Amino acid sequence: MKIFLDCLPCMLKQVLEATRMSTDDTQTQEEILMEAINILSEYKNYSCSPDLALAMHKTVKRHTGNNDPYEAVKQKDISAALKIYPKLKDFLKQKNNSLYWALKIAATGNIIDSAIYSNIDVEECVETELEKEFGLCDLEAFETKLKTAKTLLIIGDNSGETVFDKVLIEHLSPMLNMKYAVRSEPILNDATAKEACQSGLDEHVDIISSGSNAPGTILEKCNSTFIKLFNEADIIISKGQGNYEALSDCSRDIFFLLKAKCPMISKRFGVNLSDYVFIEHK
Amino acid sequence: MKIFLDCLPCMLKQVLEATRMSTDDTQTQEEILMEAINILSEYKNYSCSPDLALAMHKTVKRHTGNNDPYEAVKQKDISAALKIYPKLKDFLKQKNNSLYWALKIAATGNIIDSAIYSNIDVEECVETELEKEFGLCDLEAFETKLKTAKTLLIIGDNSGETVFDKVLIEHLSPMLNMKYAVRSEPILNDATAKEACQSGLDEHVDIISSGSNAPGTILEKCNSTFIKLFNEADIIISKGQGNYEALSDCSRDIFFLLKAKCPMISKRFGVNLSDYVFIEHK
Repeated sequence: MKIFLDCLPCMLKQVLEATRMSTDDTQTQEEILMEAINILSEYKNYSCSPDLALAMHKTVKRHTGNNDPYEAVKQKDISAALKIYPKLKDFLKQKNNSLYWALKIAATGNIIDSAIYSNIDVEECVETELEKEFGLCDLEAFETKLKTAKTLLIIGDNSGETVFDKVLIEHLSPMLNMKYAVRSEPILNDATAKEACQSGLDEHVDIISSGSNAPGTILEKCNSTFIKLFNEADIIISKGQGNYEALSDCSRDIFFLLKAKCPMISKRFGVNLSDYVFIEHK
Repeated sequence: MKIFLDCLPCMLKQVLEATRMSTDDTQTQEEILMEAINILSEYKNYSCSPDLALAMHKTVKRHTGNNDPYEAVKQKDISAALKIYPKLKDFLKQKNNSLYWALKIAATGNIIDSAIYSNIDVEECVETELEKEFGLCDLEAFETKLKTAKTLLIIGDNSGETVFDKVLIEHLSPMLNMKYAVRSEPILNDATAKEACQSGLDEHVDIISSGSNAPGTILEKCNSTFIKLFNEADIIISKGQGNYEALSDCSRDIFFLLKAKCPMISKRFGVNLSDYVFIEHK
């Protein structure tokens, strides 16, 4: 997906957030912002928002020496999510259409995105958000594919979300051989192998690093192991906006599972802002 | 007040808003944004946020030939505010401490700031907002000054707000000789003489153009008439964040009347975000 002008101020704000998490030195903060603004002025050189975000956030890492500005945030998110996990399982047990709601639980995990909701109280939010239906849901297409599918690749998004994905994975695991792809290096609050393991995902599914260290799965940056899985998986579920932005022009079938957190994305899907989406992309 | 790093993404977003109001041509929109980003990278050359905003918004005017991108918005805001005006008068009649509430009405007008609240429903908001007390209110200091004051200069802010200011002006008019200063040229949704007259303010007070065409009263840009009034007025009430940002380092007494719409401003006053403030600056 092309980079919208609307993405530019939003990304600059996000870099400032990451900068403040990495250093208290105002001189360094300013240097980073100035470098980020220069990168912003060349945004047309980047393939998609995650590609541009990667370049901007590299300046934070280079100036501060902090390779993982969101580390504390990710730990907090995972702890909060693990605390909710039993409630998620109970919630699913009470529902009739369990596949729909297992997907909805995984989508709801997308709210734990500290990059956007800086002061979110996870526990408080989740109960309300869980009950909301999808604004768009290609469940039938997914059910049809499930009948013959043997392999499923899930492309993860933020760290706390991996706990919610575990509920979906446990629901699907008797049927499928599954892989769970994560970022190869820390970027924003996205899950790497470390956070996926902290969530206990490794007990249920193979965790693989995609090779992309951007906050989205940019195929040109991915390693051959991931690309092989990506090409051969019977079904792919791609989570979150960042992965959508990086993969939306891709030619293979993908189910995108996300919460439309910005007006550009909600407009693209024809849903309301904050709606949940499960859509088959062909 | 110095320009905070937090101001930069916010101002870029505002320029994009003004750009979209002025042209549908995506090529022009992009050119404006690129120029605005270049200006942003030199933000240290500007004295305060309104000064930087002026430079950035000039690019919109130059590229589109539209000298007043917010014209339709301002008309809408004034109409909505005029519709509410009788309710504001009724509201004040019901209150005991009428000076406090006349000031509060004028402060509440500060919510009609389309530059920040893009989709605000004025009528819906006003009732709730009116009843909120000030987070900070130097009423006693103001009352003391009123006892001996003969002249009052009010420095206006956004266009719809002028209708709310009319209630304050009507309340004070038997006591004082008043002047109401506005921007000398259209900038954002700020009031110029045109909008102040549309609100009917000219029936109660002399409207004067400050000479500043920035979204804040930058004294270096003001004309001699305004500077004379500014130096000689017994009391000055300066409305809104933009005027505060431009005048906060000034050496004379000013009463700042505003709603703290951004974390930088609320932090400065030690109030909560969205609190109303009436503070004596010495």
